[in-house]
Amino acid sequence: LKANQVARILITGASGFMGRFVPGFLDRHEVHLAGRSFDNVEWPSPLPSDCALHRVDLLSSADISGFIAEVRPTHLLHLAWYVEHGKFWHSPLNLDWLAASLHLFRAFAEAGGQRFVGAGSCTEYDWRFPTLSADTTPLSPSTPYGNAKARLFQLLSAAAPHAGVSFAWGRIFFPFGPFEHPDRLLPQVVAGLLRGEEVPLSEGFQVRDFIYSEDAAQMFVESLLSDEQGAFNVASGQGLSVREFARLALRHAGDANLLRFGARAAGNDNAAHIVAGHPTGETRLGLSWIGADEGVARTVRWWRLRNINNSL
Amino acid sequence: LKANQVARILITGASGFMGRFVPGFLDRHEVHLAGRSFDNVEWPSPLPSDCALHRVDLLSSADISGFIAEVRPTHLLHLAWYVEHGKFWHSPLNLDWLAASLHLFRAFAEAGGQRFVGAGSCTEYDWRFPTLSADTTPLSPSTPYGNAKARLFQLLSAAAPHAGVSFAWGRIFFPFGPFEHPDRLLPQVVAGLLRGEEVPLSEGFQVRDFIYSEDAAQMFVESLLSDEQGAFNVASGQGLSVREFARLALRHAGDANLLRFGARAAGNDNAAHIVAGHPTGETRLGLSWIGADEGVARTVRWWRLRNINNSL
Repeated sequence: LKANQVARILITGASGFMGRFVPGFLDRHEVHLAGRSFDNVEWPSPLPSDCALHRVDLLSSADISGFIAEVRPTHLLHLAWYVEHGKFWHSPLNLDWLAASLHLFRAFAEAGGQRFVGAGSCTEYDWRFPTLSADTTPLSPSTPYGNAKARLFQLLSAAAPHAGVSFAWGRIFFPFGPFEHPDRLLPQVVAGLLRGEEVPLSEGFQVRDFIYSEDAAQMFVESLLSDEQGAFNVASGQGLSVREFARLALRHAGDANLLRFGARAAGNDNAAHIVAGHPTGETRLGLSWIGADEGVARTVRWWRLRNINNSL
Repeated sequence: LKANQVARILITGASGFMGRFVPGFLDRHEVHLAGRSFDNVEWPSPLPSDCALHRVDLLSSADISGFIAEVRPTHLLHLAWYVEHGKFWHSPLNLDWLAASLHLFRAFAEAGGQRFVGAGSCTEYDWRFPTLSADTTPLSPSTPYGNAKARLFQLLSAAAPHAGVSFAWGRIFFPFGPFEHPDRLLPQVVAGLLRGEEVPLSEGFQVRDFIYSEDAAQMFVESLLSDEQGAFNVASGQGLSVREFARLALRHAGDANLLRFGARAAGNDNAAHIVAGHPTGETRLGLSWIGADEGVARTVRWWRLRNINNSL
């Protein structure tokens, strides 16, 4: 994209807890958001002035074709997927979202689309490797979710050159931030600390690459507006143990004794170390990188405000 | 399937040059064929007495869902794909057929289907290995077609256990037989020999695993009626050079001097040796294996008869 060129950008999954940070970076462009509903979506920053919201059922191939032919986006950031907490790992709906993503790609290419960026996952990788690199680590997903993501990447990588589409794929590591599902790790920790209640946790020695949602959104936007092809990691390149990560919240809320490490078993995701191979904490948009420490601070602040609003 | 049990079998792609041998093996069962059209299909043997032909657009997900909910097959043999000669390797339609296959699988599982067998390809394998085994050879397709087949296999392998469906996948090597597209190797050879015209061929030292279409159909039927899961090779396990293979036709038609080896360059598919790792020339249906020699004889006979009919 040249300096003052305005892209016609379509974003799917923009109401997700990471996706909703994306439109805020795209004020210069014509932005279209597609999703089932935007009724109760709280946006972290004002939507771009030239932004349209479209109610579209992405699982209907007929709807997709008509919609894409109408909007004719030049750029597409495809974040939407089935991610119901606790259920998405093994759901057959992963196949439906894979098929829907193929329809979307095909319709986009047919309508003259130029640049397609999709959301992958660190679960595509073989986790027996100590660090995970988009260039060298083999793919070996162990769940139907990771499998669907890995195969979609491989399918679109092979198809894109023949379809005349520039294609990239961001593999998201462990995102956290405001708007996250309350049953997930950081919301549990913060909720307990703010209420002064004990939080049962696993031993917490597992090391993960946590990435603040807004930083992740920024990486996707950078990729979307560039022409770099292939897979990249949406990650910080820094490992933090779950213990260290949870303790970041202590600086802003509650008492260290509330965090009860070892009070419950680790989940299925019990690998010792899942960290991206290359530090990626730099931005080309010239915007600042927020990082884990400040990201956790913002997330705690957000929950605190939300609790105050809810109790008013 | 128990001894006298009757299955409700749906076959897609039954009008393909290999697929049309399938129904003939299923006389004991309730058989449904689905396809765009059966108008000009010449069947090599009578269709089973309990056989229904359905005109369905498999690329329409709405059509698929309604159709499967109506027929409610217990067994599904999915052979249909985009295979237009010379075009299918790199076509974006491979993505459409992948998506359609996922819709088909999902609808089948939702309707209580038990056994799903799909058609794969030897192009899924990494051809740098001397022999290709479903158990040990890595997948490394080099075309969008092979890629789509490999990814579909991986997707359905991961999804099937969670969907309660028994799943197998037959990787077809180099099929030949009657009804084959006239631009392909054996039809070209036979046509030249029957007309007494020269046939320009590559040097022909490449070794391939040629499989007679009816034998391939038989292997699919055996798999469909069994409960063995995972990938298997639809192959003979025997390598023949293109030279040897073409010369099989000489026993039944024409003059050796007509076969001009080296008169043209080899195609893209220039690997020296593509042969299945395990001999698989046995049948469990108790039916005889036809093999390359007799298969070529039958194919020559078929072309000869066709030419006579066409000239009447």
